[in-house]
Amino acid sequence: MSDPLITLTTDFGEDSPYVAAMKGVILSINPAARLLDLSHEIPPQDIPHAAWFMAGALPWFPTGTLHVVVVDPGVGTARELLYIECCGQRILAPDNGCWTWLDQTKKPLVRRLRERQWWLPAISATFHGRDILSPVAAHLSLGIEPARLGPKTTRWIRLEREAPFCQPGRVLGRVVFIDRFGNLITNIPADAVGQPPDVLTVGAHRVADFRWVRTYGEARRGEVVALIGSTDHLEVAVVEGSAAALFAAKIGTAISVSWTPGTGRKRSSG
Amino acid sequence: MSDPLITLTTDFGEDSPYVAAMKGVILSINPAARLLDLSHEIPPQDIPHAAWFMAGALPWFPTGTLHVVVVDPGVGTARELLYIECCGQRILAPDNGCWTWLDQTKKPLVRRLRERQWWLPAISATFHGRDILSPVAAHLSLGIEPARLGPKTTRWIRLEREAPFCQPGRVLGRVVFIDRFGNLITNIPADAVGQPPDVLTVGAHRVADFRWVRTYGEARRGEVVALIGSTDHLEVAVVEGSAAALFAAKIGTAISVSWTPGTGRKRSSG
Amino acid sequence: MSDPLITLTTDFGEDSPYVAAMKGVILSINPAARLLDLSHEIPPQDIPHAAWFMAGALPWFPTGTLHVVVVDPGVGTARELLYIECCGQRILAPDNGCWTWLDQTKKPLVRRLRERQWWLPAISATFHGRDILSPVAAHLSLGIEPARLGPKTTRWIRLEREAPFCQPGRVLGRVVFIDRFGNLITNIPADAVGQPPDVLTVGAHRVADFRWVRTYGEARRGEVVALIGSTDHLEVAVVEGSAAALFAAKIGTAISVSWTPGTGRKRSSG
Repeated sequence: MSDPLITLTTDFGEDSPYVAAMKGVILSINPAARLLDLSHEIPPQDIPHAAWFMAGALPWFPTGTLHVVVVDPGVGTARELLYIECCGQRILAPDNGCWTWLDQTKKPLVRRLRERQWWLPAISATFHGRDILSPVAAHLSLGIEPARLGPKTTRWIRLEREAPFCQPGRVLGRVVFIDRFGNLITNIPADAVGQPPDVLTVGAHRVADFRWVRTYGEARRGEVVALIGSTDHLEVAVVEGSAAALFAAKIGTAISVSWTPGTGRKRSSG
Repeated sequence: MSDPLITLTTDFGEDSPYVAAMKGVILSINPAARLLDLSHEIPPQDIPHAAWFMAGALPWFPTGTLHVVVVDPGVGTARELLYIECCGQRILAPDNGCWTWLDQTKKPLVRRLRERQWWLPAISATFHGRDILSPVAAHLSLGIEPARLGPKTTRWIRLEREAPFCQPGRVLGRVVFIDRFGNLITNIPADAVGQPPDVLTVGAHRVADFRWVRTYGEARRGEVVALIGSTDHLEVAVVEGSAAALFAAKIGTAISVSWTPGTGRKRSSG
Repeated sequence: MSDPLITLTTDFGEDSPYVAAMKGVILSINPAARLLDLSHEIPPQDIPHAAWFMAGALPWFPTGTLHVVVVDPGVGTARELLYIECCGQRILAPDNGCWTWLDQTKKPLVRRLRERQWWLPAISATFHGRDILSPVAAHLSLGIEPARLGPKTTRWIRLEREAPFCQPGRVLGRVVFIDRFGNLITNIPADAVGQPPDVLTVGAHRVADFRWVRTYGEARRGEVVALIGSTDHLEVAVVEGSAAALFAAKIGTAISVSWTPGTGRKRSSG
């Protein structure tokens, strides 16, 4: 039995007809498909952002959900298109590493899309999301066996993920996402932080007067706070303000936390 | 019998994985849920905007539709989360007043979300939309009784709504929304206007040459028009232009209309 | 038998309650309607953009799909509202030409919406998308005969579409769309190009060192490329950059390609 749910994630933006064309192709093959937009505002051709997005969003979906992801700077070149089973999800995406930040504790199953019978009859050189990934998704949602899409492979592009640098008493990471509230989400995981740090740096700024909190609302308007956010990583925020604006921070800006031996800042809830 | 339709309204924007995570959580509990995006572009943490949006949009839905609203600056603090039945709609939202501009002629029924059995097992401090509101919505869409979510309450935050100031011959209000066309939508209701006014002010501008119209297209390109808009409130517009740009108007800008005794401007359709 | 699928395309943007109100109206009449957003980011009142969007997106949908399109600067004036059957699709839209770039090889069937029994009881002067088009779409999705909406007509607004200017050895066209990647999509169709051109101009820029490619990834980062894009028209792009930014190009910017007799630039794949 097949589930007709198909999610869509692209970098096409909302004003172009590209996403609409994909939806039309899918529904033309499986009129019962249930289409669900995840985001079409992945920054153009930004594979690390797509990887971060997928790692944060896809694991929340039911086992076996089918996701189509089109962030594809290499469209039309020799790069492969893949069918992937990873951490319980099914993904159709270009072979550019965008899916490789998902948990791979259980070995992924990956196939190359090679069987043209599941594609549109005419394939453009610049829009494989419409011409290959969409029809393949529609056929999968109708219940065809993934084995019929193409051969298994154990070779695929892996996207490097910079780990934070841990020294005794100090962890140095980077901003990996800035959300709409100006919160700086870092690549420093909760378990690298442990005890609330004494010192916070954001880029060239040494932030003397930040507060370590459990949630944004525990400090006063305008205060700089640091916390473990909803993705289980260190975040830096300004209450009812924008940390991104205050520190002129960008994706990639260095952030560090450190501890002075023998001291130990109290948690605000402590 | 339960309806699987669930609408989503947030201030998360389109480029973050937060909305997608909520969708995944809902579908993991009720795979048959029908998800409908209303808007994810509520300005960040802007509760009055959310209130205005909800008052304008929700009453159009079928009786009993379930709406999840996440504009939640107080996430993780002591603020409550609520289940609300109001003007025929069912709403899950933080207790910050965002729903209180809906018509309350018929007394709302409100419950506090307290029963953790309907929440995710692990609750983050910063994302209750994902960890509490989404799973509760999914369970409601499966048909559980609202009484099982938590106790009734008659206490909740009410969001103040500035009424226009009415004098003889003059009504003074404010811009409450600026739409994408630059139209200025005010808090001055149709029945406070009645006869077409003679004088219009927008901020510090006395607009001598405006036209009172029934619809935008009744005046020439570039003309300033005033009218009763689709939400039954006074609007100021520039035909095929932007009133917001012309008057440098913002949310909160004062707008007044007045009548010179004994005169009486003709309606353009008159 | 009727299909409950209804697509929505508007210029309302994502932050207003207008789209949400339309969805509520449709679902109030047909709770089983399947709503599918195509775009709400058509530039405000930009009928040519809407026409370009519809021509690019709608033909991909299954035969008989119902599309509601609201880009309506003339709302509330004497302009008609139409039910259209064109190139296999069913469209509800204002009579402003927005649908007339769809293929009309097979003669369209067009009706004027006149029968008020399918409209909301109260009709605002400024929001016919909510008050007329949405309820009519809902009733159509329930299976009413189009003949009951109003009388057939053979008169409607046709939107002029500027054709490229073809001389021996030269084709002169314009930018009709700039996508999120900064690619310049022109009105020059593939069959007007044929052999790869020798010379490219974008606005006042004579681009000496462009490459003619099959797809973006065939050139190096930063290179200017020209190609036949996924809509079968000439595109100008900068690999991993923005042609729009490089040439300060806008919608309407002139673009030409020409051929020096007896030469003949090699395709990069040649």
